[in-house]
Amino acid sequence: MQDLLEDIAARALGAEDRGKVADYIPELAKVDPDQFAISVSTADGQLFSAGDARTPFSIQSISKVFVLALALGQVGEALWRRVGREPSGQSFDSILLLEREKGIPRNPFINAGALVTTDTFLGSASPREALGALIRFVRAASDQDDIHINEAVAKSELETAHRNFALAHYMRSHGNLLNNPDLVLGTYCHQCAIEMTCEQLALAGRFLLDTAGAPSLVSRERKRRINALMMTCGHYDGSGDFAFRVGLPGKSGVGGGILVIAPGRGSVAVWSPGLNSYGNSKLGTEAMEIFARETGWSIFG
Amino acid sequence: MQDLLEDIAARALGAEDRGKVADYIPELAKVDPDQFAISVSTADGQLFSAGDARTPFSIQSISKVFVLALALGQVGEALWRRVGREPSGQSFDSILLLEREKGIPRNPFINAGALVTTDTFLGSASPREALGALIRFVRAASDQDDIHINEAVAKSELETAHRNFALAHYMRSHGNLLNNPDLVLGTYCHQCAIEMTCEQLALAGRFLLDTAGAPSLVSRERKRRINALMMTCGHYDGSGDFAFRVGLPGKSGVGGGILVIAPGRGSVAVWSPGLNSYGNSKLGTEAMEIFARETGWSIFG
Amino acid sequence: MQDLLEDIAARALGAEDRGKVADYIPELAKVDPDQFAISVSTADGQLFSAGDARTPFSIQSISKVFVLALALGQVGEALWRRVGREPSGQSFDSILLLEREKGIPRNPFINAGALVTTDTFLGSASPREALGALIRFVRAASDQDDIHINEAVAKSELETAHRNFALAHYMRSHGNLLNNPDLVLGTYCHQCAIEMTCEQLALAGRFLLDTAGAPSLVSRERKRRINALMMTCGHYDGSGDFAFRVGLPGKSGVGGGILVIAPGRGSVAVWSPGLNSYGNSKLGTEAMEIFARETGWSIFG
Amino acid sequence: MQDLLEDIAARALGAEDRGKVADYIPELAKVDPDQFAISVSTADGQLFSAGDARTPFSIQSISKVFVLALALGQVGEALWRRVGREPSGQSFDSILLLEREKGIPRNPFINAGALVTTDTFLGSASPREALGALIRFVRAASDQDDIHINEAVAKSELETAHRNFALAHYMRSHGNLLNNPDLVLGTYCHQCAIEMTCEQLALAGRFLLDTAGAPSLVSRERKRRINALMMTCGHYDGSGDFAFRVGLPGKSGVGGGILVIAPGRGSVAVWSPGLNSYGNSKLGTEAMEIFARETGWSIFG
Repeated sequence: MQDLLEDIAARALGAEDRGKVADYIPELAKVDPDQFAISVSTADGQLFSAGDARTPFSIQSISKVFVLALALGQVGEALWRRVGREPSGQSFDSILLLEREKGIPRNPFINAGALVTTDTFLGSASPREALGALIRFVRAASDQDDIHINEAVAKSELETAHRNFALAHYMRSHGNLLNNPDLVLGTYCHQCAIEMTCEQLALAGRFLLDTAGAPSLVSRERKRRINALMMTCGHYDGSGDFAFRVGLPGKSGVGGGILVIAPGRGSVAVWSPGLNSYGNSKLGTEAMEIFARETGWSIFG
Repeated sequence: MQDLLEDIAARALGAEDRGKVADYIPELAKVDPDQFAISVSTADGQLFSAGDARTPFSIQSISKVFVLALALGQVGEALWRRVGREPSGQSFDSILLLEREKGIPRNPFINAGALVTTDTFLGSASPREALGALIRFVRAASDQDDIHINEAVAKSELETAHRNFALAHYMRSHGNLLNNPDLVLGTYCHQCAIEMTCEQLALAGRFLLDTAGAPSLVSRERKRRINALMMTCGHYDGSGDFAFRVGLPGKSGVGGGILVIAPGRGSVAVWSPGLNSYGNSKLGTEAMEIFARETGWSIFG
Repeated sequence: MQDLLEDIAARALGAEDRGKVADYIPELAKVDPDQFAISVSTADGQLFSAGDARTPFSIQSISKVFVLALALGQVGEALWRRVGREPSGQSFDSILLLEREKGIPRNPFINAGALVTTDTFLGSASPREALGALIRFVRAASDQDDIHINEAVAKSELETAHRNFALAHYMRSHGNLLNNPDLVLGTYCHQCAIEMTCEQLALAGRFLLDTAGAPSLVSRERKRRINALMMTCGHYDGSGDFAFRVGLPGKSGVGGGILVIAPGRGSVAVWSPGLNSYGNSKLGTEAMEIFARETGWSIFG
Repeated sequence: MQDLLEDIAARALGAEDRGKVADYIPELAKVDPDQFAISVSTADGQLFSAGDARTPFSIQSISKVFVLALALGQVGEALWRRVGREPSGQSFDSILLLEREKGIPRNPFINAGALVTTDTFLGSASPREALGALIRFVRAASDQDDIHINEAVAKSELETAHRNFALAHYMRSHGNLLNNPDLVLGTYCHQCAIEMTCEQLALAGRFLLDTAGAPSLVSRERKRRINALMMTCGHYDGSGDFAFRVGLPGKSGVGGGILVIAPGRGSVAVWSPGLNSYGNSKLGTEAMEIFARETGWSIFG
C-alpha cells in the first residue's frame, strides 16, 4: 500500500495538466497548485500517506457529508421531505430544477440541497452552537483535535456567495428554508471553511465504514445510505463519470479534496487543488482511478 | 435463501397497492398484474426461486444492458463519444437535455442513449443479423436455449413508438444516428420484446459477476463499468432512490422486471408487472429492498 | 366614448368571475375585488372615465414603464447590453432563462429585467433621490401633483420579496447588478408601491403618445420603442394573447391596473383587482378587448 | 417612395456583411448571396420595386402565414386548442417547451406550431389537394398566376427534415397530430418550397390589409389577429428585436424573404438570402428598419 501511494504521488507531482484552482473565492485562489497528498486509513486501523498529507486544506463541500449525518441525526428520514435523493444532471449551483421542482433540491450534495441540510441542522440553534457541534463531530470521527475553521476563508466565501444567496432566497420563497438566508449562509460558509489535512480527512471518513474499529457515530443503515448518496450524487454533474472510472462512493470539494469510502476496506482522502471541468479535483480523480484499479477496491466486482 | 425468497413472494402476493401496468404498449397492457417472481443465481452456481419464476415476461429496457455489452464489444470506449455516462435527472423519454447537449444522450439506459447504443451495435448489419447476435448472447449468458422475441409485442411497440421516433430523428438531425431511424427503431422494439423467465434472467445476469463459474463474455474491467452505470443510471429518474434503498446496481424494464447484480455474491431477477411513478416495478423494488436488507448484500457496507 | 366606457363599466360590475386578487403581498390582499375603473385620455386632450376612476390603487409593475424611460434617459441604448428585448415565454418571476442566458434578463418588463433597469436608474444615487426623480417624472407626465408612494405597501412587499431577492443575487453573481441587492430591492418595492387613480394613470400614459399636446419627456423614436416593448413583453407570458385579443401595447401590474397606449389616438387606463392565470387583471383585459373592438383602435388594421 | 427603395437597394448592394445563406437545405445553399430586392404595394394600389424584384425565391416559412389563414378558415378559433399564441423565447426548431407544454406548440409560426397548422389545414384531404388549394389562395391574394412549387427544393428539404420529423413524432406521441408524420412533413416541405418574386409577395400580402382595394379573403377581425401574431411571433426568437427596430408585423423565411404589413398603408416584401443569428434575413431586416424610419409607417406612433 505504501509503495502504491508513493507511486501515485510521484505521478501526480510530474503531471503537466494540473487543472485549474477555483478562483471565485479569493482566499482559495491563493493556494499553491503544485501540492498533492493521498492518505488511506484501512479497516484494520493502519494509516498510510504520501505527499503533503499533513498540510491543512479547505474541505469545502466535503463538509456536506458531515452536516448530512448530523441533520439526519436530528430529524431522521423526515429530512427527505425537504430534499431529494436523485442525481441532478446539472452543475452544482444550478437553479433550473429548483424552479421545476418548486424549491425542493434534488439531493443534499448540490449547493441548494446542502443549504436545506444546513438549515435543518441549524434548527433553532445559533450558528455558533451549530458550528461547535459540527467541529466536535469531525474531531470525534477522526479522533483528531487539531481541526479548525479558517475565518478568513469563511469571510471571503460569504462575500462572494451571491449564487448561494440566490438559491437560499429562492427556496425561502417556496417555504423550504426555515431560517433567515443570512443565518444559513453564514453557517454554510463557515462549515465549508473547515481545514483538515489529508490524514485527518482519511481518518474522519472512518465513521462511514462498517468495520470493527470504526467509530459508531451513525447506524449501519445510515452509513450505507450516505455511501449510496455519495455514489450517485457526490461529484455533481460528474458523479456518473466518477462511479464509472473509480467505482467507489466519494465526495469532492472545490478546495481540491476528495473523500472516498471503500466499504469493508478503508477510507481514502486525496487532495490536489486544481479542478477539472466538473469542479472536482483533476489529479485527485485520476489518482483515485489508479488507486481503485491497483487495489481492486471497486465495489462493482 | 429459499425461505427468504418464499417470504418475499408471499408478502408480494398479499400486497394491496401493486402499482400500474404500463398501458402505452397495448400488448403489455394485457399482462395479469397479480404475478410475481424472484430468482437468485448465487456466485457459487446455485439457483433459488419463488413465485411465477418460469413465466416468460417482456424484458423491455433490461435488454439495454445486453446491447450495451455488445456495442462496447464492437467499438470499445469509442462509444462514449456518442453517449454520456451521467444520470439524466429527467424521465426516461425526455428530450430536454438532448437539446441542450446537442444530440448526445446522457447515458445508455435512457431511451435516447439506448437508441444510439442499438445504432452502434447495428452498425452496417441488418436488423435480422443484429437481433440474431443479441439472442445468441443472451442464450450464452444464461446457458438457456429457450429465449425468444415476441413478434406481437415488437409490432405493438413499433406502432406506438412516436416518442422514440422523435428522439431518433432528433439525434439524426445532430448527426448522432448513423442508420435510418426506421431501421434503428425496428431493431430497438424487437430487442425490447425479448421474453425471458425470472430464472433465465437471473442466470443471464451472471455475465456481470466476476466469480469463478461466471461466463466470460466481457472483461472484468467492463463488468465493473457496466455495473457502475446500472447503479447511477439504471432506474431512470429513480436511480438515486434505488441506490439509496437497495444499494445494488440494477436495471429495470417497463415489463415489470428488474435485474440486480450483487458483485461477488450473485445475480437477482425480480418481476411484478405493476409500476411505480418512475416507471420501475413497484413490488419488484420493494422486494429488492427487503432482499438487500435481509441478505446484507448492499455494496455500501 | 363616454357611453362606451359606462357600458364597459356596467358589464364589469355585473361580472361573476372577477379573477383572484394577488395575495402574496399582504397589503394588496386587502383590496376590495369589486372595484372597477376605466379612463381614456384622448390625443386631443379630452378625459373620459367610468367607475371608480378616482380611487388610488397600487400601480405595481406598471411603474416599470416609467423607470425604463428614466433608465434609457440616463444610459441610452447602452441599457440593452444588460437586458434583452425579447418576450420570455416564461412567467414573470422565472429564473430559468436567467441561468441559460448568464444573468442577462430577457426584457425590462419581467421582474429580473426590471431589477436591472432599476439598478441602472439608481446608478450611484441614493434610493431616496432616485424615487424622488421617479415621482417627479410621473407627476410631470400626468400633470398631476397628488401622486405618492404607499409606504405600508412598499414595506409589505419588501418583506415577502424572497423571489426577487433570489433574482437580484443571481444576477449579481453574474456581475449584472451594480448596486447591493438590498438597495435595488428597496428602490424596486417602493416604485411598485406608487399609488395612482385610473384618471391619473391614463393622463400619465400620454408621455408615450406622439401627438401635438402630449408631454415631451422622451423622444419620438424612444416612444415608439417603448410601445413596441409593451406590445411584445408587457403582459409576461400572456403578451401574445393580449396582442391577439386587444391589438394595442400595454403594461399590466398585479395591483390590477393596465396602461394601454393607442398611438395617435389616446392613452387608456383600466383597473380591476382580480387577476387571470397570467397575473394580469382579468376584467381589465376583457374590458380592453371590448374597448379595442368597439373603437377600432387596434394598431393591426 | 421609388427613390427610397432605390436608395435602400443601393445600400444593400454595397453591404460588406451580408449574413450567411442557410446551408442545411442543399438546394437553398446554392442561391447567390449577392441578390437583394424590395417591393411595396401601397394601400391605394401602386407597386414600387427596386433590385431583383422579379427573381423568384423560396418563401419558406412565410408560407406559414397563408396556411394559418387557410387553417383558420377551416376550423376557426378551434385551432387555438391545438396551438398557442405566445412568443416562445426559443429558437424556431426548439423542442424544449413542447415537452413542458405536453405537445402544444407555443404559436403557429415556430416549426412545431406550423406543423400543427398544416396538419389542420390538411385535414382528411390528400397533400396534393391541400397544396392545390394553397397555391390557389396565394395566386388569388396576389392576383398573379405564375406562382409555383419548386419540387427540387421540396425534395431536398424533406430529405434533411430530421428535426421537423422529430417535432412531428413528438406531437403525435401527445396526440396533437392527426395525420401521419410522413404526410404532414410532405405537405409542409412543399408549402415551404413555394417560389415567389418580391413583387408577387408584396402583392400577396395585401390580403392582410384592411383597405378599399384589398382582396377579401379573410375577415377584418382575422386580418388584425394574424397581424398581431406576426408582430409577437413572426421572427422566432428575434420577434422582440424586429418589433423594436422596425415596429411593423412581419414574417420571415430562411430563404431570406420577409413579408411586412403596414396596416392602412401597404404591404412590403424584402429579400436577401444571407441570414442573421436568429435565422432572419440580415440585410432584409436592416432594409426594413430604414424603410420604417424613413416612411414613418411604424404602428407604434
